[in-house]
Amino acid sequence: MLHTIELLGVAFFAMAGGIEAERKGMDLVGIYAVAFVTALGGGTLRDLLLDRHPLFWVKSPEYALWILAASVAAALIRRYRKNPLTDQAVLLPDAFGLGFFTAVGTAVAFGQAVPPFISVLMGVITATFGGVIRDIICNEVPIIFKRGQLYATCSLFAAIAYWACETAGAGAEVAMTVCVLTALILRLIAVRFNIQLPL
Amino acid sequence: MLHTIELLGVAFFAMAGGIEAERKGMDLVGIYAVAFVTALGGGTLRDLLLDRHPLFWVKSPEYALWILAASVAAALIRRYRKNPLTDQAVLLPDAFGLGFFTAVGTAVAFGQAVPPFISVLMGVITATFGGVIRDIICNEVPIIFKRGQLYATCSLFAAIAYWACETAGAGAEVAMTVCVLTALILRLIAVRFNIQLPL
Amino acid sequence: MLHTIELLGVAFFAMAGGIEAERKGMDLVGIYAVAFVTALGGGTLRDLLLDRHPLFWVKSPEYALWILAASVAAALIRRYRKNPLTDQAVLLPDAFGLGFFTAVGTAVAFGQAVPPFISVLMGVITATFGGVIRDIICNEVPIIFKRGQLYATCSLFAAIAYWACETAGAGAEVAMTVCVLTALILRLIAVRFNIQLPL
Repeated sequence: MLHTIELLGVAFFAMAGGIEAERKGMDLVGIYAVAFVTALGGGTLRDLLLDRHPLFWVKSPEYALWILAASVAAALIRRYRKNPLTDQAVLLPDAFGLGFFTAVGTAVAFGQAVPPFISVLMGVITATFGGVIRDIICNEVPIIFKRGQLYATCSLFAAIAYWACETAGAGAEVAMTVCVLTALILRLIAVRFNIQLPL
Repeated sequence: MLHTIELLGVAFFAMAGGIEAERKGMDLVGIYAVAFVTALGGGTLRDLLLDRHPLFWVKSPEYALWILAASVAAALIRRYRKNPLTDQAVLLPDAFGLGFFTAVGTAVAFGQAVPPFISVLMGVITATFGGVIRDIICNEVPIIFKRGQLYATCSLFAAIAYWACETAGAGAEVAMTVCVLTALILRLIAVRFNIQLPL
Repeated sequence: MLHTIELLGVAFFAMAGGIEAERKGMDLVGIYAVAFVTALGGGTLRDLLLDRHPLFWVKSPEYALWILAASVAAALIRRYRKNPLTDQAVLLPDAFGLGFFTAVGTAVAFGQAVPPFISVLMGVITATFGGVIRDIICNEVPIIFKRGQLYATCSLFAAIAYWACETAGAGAEVAMTVCVLTALILRLIAVRFNIQLPL
């Protein structure tokens, strides 16, 4: 069940990355690379920083194959119709994925017994750095670093919520649910009321 | 013999990277950094992802020194005459290097017993990601991701050929020869007939 | 004492990075990310390349928290007054930090018993690659790679000085002092007399 959610999340992020790559005039090689990095780059960076080996996608090649399928889908979709991933259509699955990947990343760091603040950072890195590396490859200033509606900040509060639940002794399922809901609700509020950081 | 080929390949990629850096108005520091990353970046990324330590160029400093020599050569050449590395002059050694580095990368991954599809990806990463990181540093969208004559795709088929030979029980020399020839022939055909990916 | 110097250096590089991020129109999330990468990116890359785990900032979360404070300071300062970090005001602390981080990086590599040339490279990477990654994220060609007054070159000679002292049997304090002075003096001379690399 959890694994199904994860694969759906990976496919979703991969397609979003692939469509961005298509827009930049890349062919399937570029679409695949950008989709891969968007979907798995955050988790890969986390595992390199925490020295967790073998990497999850090296051990389980279904991630890489699954992203290949999503890349071909993204390329075909863009070719035969306008980009279906409008900001509005993307908002809910993206906010859900943000919370889900934050939970996974924070849980992994928690399991490695790193200090709390670093665990929280690892959750945010897992959820957001795939997009950062995608923007760097696409030769843009990373969008989540620019002034705009809260995004990484939602992931930050979600990671803190996960950490608080775990520390309070709640089970992993509770912590994950609270984390996903925190990210989801904060993100929807930020977009609805156009909330930005004061600094 | 193999080591000589490898050093020649490293020097060739380093000079290509260095000349690109010169064109961007960099001085010897930038030329060396870009040459280093172009020649060794793909293999370094592969080893970080597969957790192979110490890195080949940390253990054997002759790579880094050899690239320094190539960088000085690139800087001098560009200063005293026009870029001698025309697309035509570069085609053959570059296609050869593509196949050679693909073979090395696939062989390394094969030796770590990672799944076949990941071994193939590691071969392609070894051969092509030096150029990707070079383009990112030079503030360009990576050229191999843009629609154009097959390049990474040649490396992909060469890596598959390597894997097939190894799996069929052929020796490492046979696998490497088949891999290099596959990349070389596919690349020459792609350039000659202007073949691009359909997607 | 040394630890105090290090935290001051981290805060200084973080503020310089944060102010650069502010100039690019980033909000606190971007300022923090860029400040973090500017201050700790070089040391992180060194430790990944040398396989030193856990990373210093994973083990000691005060780095990450300290940079958060510097980021808020940078954001507030930029909002209420013009950038106080003029080229002139920055020159001395920056040259000092260059030497200090070069010494730390070379010492770490020396302690891992890597070859001398690689130790020297690691010193230069520690001191300069935070800025390189910052420039890549900010979508610029890394400034230290462009033709200009010696910068990485000062770090290079400082690292060689460190290595020479250690090899000659001088204590770590002597080596560090010589290294910092070398970087500082070379950098000041380079700026004063506008010295550039001949190539």
